[in-house]
Amino acid sequence: MAELLSDTDRKNALSDLDGWHYNSDTKTISKEFKFKDFIEAWGFMSKVAIKAEKLNHHPDWSNGYNKVSVSLTTHDAGGITENDVKLAEFMDNAA
Amino acid sequence: MAELLSDTDRKNALSDLDGWHYNSDTKTISKEFKFKDFIEAWGFMSKVAIKAEKLNHHPDWSNGYNKVSVSLTTHDAGGITENDVKLAEFMDNAA
Repeated sequence: MAELLSDTDRKNALSDLDGWHYNSDTKTISKEFKFKDFIEAWGFMSKVAIKAEKLNHHPDWSNGYNKVSVSLTTHDAGGITENDVKLAEFMDNAA
Repeated sequence: MAELLSDTDRKNALSDLDGWHYNSDTKTISKEFKFKDFIEAWGFMSKVAIKAEKLNHHPDWSNGYNKVSVSLTTHDAGGITENDVKLAEFMDNAA
């Protein structure tokens, strides 16, 4: 099982990502992605869905037309782990 | 453009759907779908995504693992139209 990142490790990981924010109440990292239209947004989500299933680590996310809001955490660990950072990184590259 | 349904038409349409609720504040109809796992939930969303794009009528929806929460409205019309009913019906059949 993935281990909770220390505060320092989490901050360092976040600074390497593009525009993700940590919420200390929900212990999640989140980001809103914006695309040209629904087809682009859906293409992004489809890539992420397959990756998430492969990692067995799934996002909480919502979509309305060209927008995708993502929230990541590792429920079993009670916060942010390497798995969240990995999936966030994949999303940044896929977007 | 799709026309706003009358209160009576909306109520009749809703009673023909499976478990959708009307929210008079947001003027949306909504439903939570639950699946066996993420693959099933994603399969459902993929069918709906293509249909939504064909209808040029897109849901506001969120997903976490095996759950999909959907909210439908016709923004241009300021409430529920035949397009929302059509998409809701498609979702009921796809689920």
